[in-house]
Amino acid sequence: MTKSVLVLPGDGIGPEIVAEATRVLDAVNARFGLGIETREALVGGVAIDAEGSPLPDDTLAAARAADAILLGAVGGPQWDDLEMAQRPEKGLLGLRSNLNLFANLRPAILYPQLAGASTLKPEVVSGLDILIVRELTGGIYFGEPRGIRTRDDGVREGFNTYVYSEPEIERIARVAFDAAMKRNRRLCSVDKANVLEVTVLWREVVKRVARDYPEVELSHMYVDNAAMQLVRAPKQFDVLVTGNMFGDILSDCAAMLTGSIGMLPSASLNESGQGMYEPIHGSAPDIAGQGVANPLATIISVAMMLRYSLQAPAAADAIERAVADVLDQGLRTADIAGPDEQPVSTRAMGDAVLAAL
Amino acid sequence: MTKSVLVLPGDGIGPEIVAEATRVLDAVNARFGLGIETREALVGGVAIDAEGSPLPDDTLAAARAADAILLGAVGGPQWDDLEMAQRPEKGLLGLRSNLNLFANLRPAILYPQLAGASTLKPEVVSGLDILIVRELTGGIYFGEPRGIRTRDDGVREGFNTYVYSEPEIERIARVAFDAAMKRNRRLCSVDKANVLEVTVLWREVVKRVARDYPEVELSHMYVDNAAMQLVRAPKQFDVLVTGNMFGDILSDCAAMLTGSIGMLPSASLNESGQGMYEPIHGSAPDIAGQGVANPLATIISVAMMLRYSLQAPAAADAIERAVADVLDQGLRTADIAGPDEQPVSTRAMGDAVLAAL
Ligand SMILES: CC(C)[C@H](C(=O)O)[C@@H](O)C(=O)O
Ligand SMILES: CC(C)[C@H](C(=O)O)[C@@H](O)C(=O)O
Repeated sequence: MTKSVLVLPGDGIGPEIVAEATRVLDAVNARFGLGIETREALVGGVAIDAEGSPLPDDTLAAARAADAILLGAVGGPQWDDLEMAQRPEKGLLGLRSNLNLFANLRPAILYPQLAGASTLKPEVVSGLDILIVRELTGGIYFGEPRGIRTRDDGVREGFNTYVYSEPEIERIARVAFDAAMKRNRRLCSVDKANVLEVTVLWREVVKRVARDYPEVELSHMYVDNAAMQLVRAPKQFDVLVTGNMFGDILSDCAAMLTGSIGMLPSASLNESGQGMYEPIHGSAPDIAGQGVANPLATIISVAMMLRYSLQAPAAADAIERAVADVLDQGLRTADIAGPDEQPVSTRAMGDAVLAAL
Repeated sequence: MTKSVLVLPGDGIGPEIVAEATRVLDAVNARFGLGIETREALVGGVAIDAEGSPLPDDTLAAARAADAILLGAVGGPQWDDLEMAQRPEKGLLGLRSNLNLFANLRPAILYPQLAGASTLKPEVVSGLDILIVRELTGGIYFGEPRGIRTRDDGVREGFNTYVYSEPEIERIARVAFDAAMKRNRRLCSVDKANVLEVTVLWREVVKRVARDYPEVELSHMYVDNAAMQLVRAPKQFDVLVTGNMFGDILSDCAAMLTGSIGMLPSASLNESGQGMYEPIHGSAPDIAGQGVANPLATIISVAMMLRYSLQAPAAADAIERAVADVLDQGLRTADIAGPDEQPVSTRAMGDAVLAAL
């Protein structure tokens, strides 16, 4: 009964934070006898440099074969001038779509130990615990036709297509309702149904799926209002469900409400429970290689992976407890250190989690 | 040299707040001898009820003929089940596109008197003064093809088209650069050029226009990061420019940072300086008819109208001073009243502004 995990450090701070997360994974693997085998592969900018493609065939094959994937981050300024199809991001997007990882779960949780890090007033965010369920393999990210063309009148135009089919909407809605059932049974579906037809269908399908979940209180909100409400009174939300583009924007906004995006993990799941796990922060090229990045979001992503894809909830609990412990001990990397706190290094934070385990 | 203003109270709290704003307009008209003639017409839900269309022909004709339009708000739950083409919002969108009001200016300003109303910490938002320049007649709001169809395989799908041409991008970029020149000369263009081709063209054109504005410091930001940065450190921004959909979301987010969206005006301009002016808050059906809505955003919209479309800057200044005065006097409608402050009515706030004039 071995389980396989593909580790994709990627670019920027990716290798540093993934190194600590892998040490934590190895530790719980040994301690709980999980029989997890890990291997590493290239994705993103480093894959472009080494193999000429952001998602080499052997990486994709290894990803397909794995039970779960742990990703650091992709992208950096040195690849910014490449054509769209050859950019690091295409590695990430290619993994999502080829593995059909349609359900992106992004919790925005305020750690009580880090309450002061938020730019919002304590009473507005204390105890914040929102889950954003973002559709990840459809919508305008993947819609065709797309491109830049010269029209008959000689004018150039860029175009993308925002498209969702009923089955795509239905399956992400079910994920969101299921998640709401395990939480506070409130689901808010975010759309722009007063302007965009694609989201008129979205709202219709979500309402239909709701009939199978009579215990969940469903509401609908326009995306502009949702962005306001996240700032005004984020604790009104339990679970939010939305499409790929709105989810990209709102989940980053929600994450920033906590003030500590260096703490937030994410999961991207397909219908068979296979998943890719990654911190929601990016590759942070400005601090890459300095050993100062916060590895906790990646370490907590490992906990999510153990829980959702590797059926090892006890190991997940142990990691989460260890993280709470090191926060209680007052350890802080630079991103979450207050003005009077001495920041610790990436490695020291990893050491502390291992010690706390 | 008479000037004509079309007044469109619209739905919900629209009539109440527009009534106060019109009194203020009448007062400065008399005092400064501006020769402004106003007339009223129907738009939105009230127009649907009275004439069967959210934008009746005579309203559109009157709008075309006017130098400026003052709009309250449109929409409400009683029209929510209408088909897309027959909804109140189509009245607003129809005015924008028929009058070619492509440049939407949305200031997000924190009034020092209302600093406490923000959900953000004072040091994060004090002195906040951002201008969001949103493209308003293109992008996914108006792109074709659009609709809901049944595919050959029998599956229904909804679809919209996100499209921008070079001239559309160029003209909004120029508005934004011009605005930046009158402010702190920093412009941030928001796109999703790592995923969406339409915004690759957007970025390219903005960069080209920048050559004509060597004094403006131009930066580019992905929309997800912009949503984060607005929450993390909004004062880093001077002017933001973006497309219709991203602008809808980010301008509402930015407005909410101030905690007092009842204070924020907007202008929508075409190439000849004709403009539509409206508060950025909506029709607030929950408090409509109670006489408690805040008329100040609409009154400040009148000041913007006098400045941008009616060449009456002294009258605009007078209104803005009067608004500052009533805030200094401690007058607050319910939306901006602190826990220890006794809220005043819509009418009382209007009276106070008139008295301060
Ligand atoms: C890197 C980028 C393509 C990606 C996205 O837009 O989905 C990122 O912002 C994210 O949210 O995971
Ligand atoms: C009412 C709606 C169509 C409109 C928009 O989305 O543009 C509103 O949200 C706005 O921002 O003016």
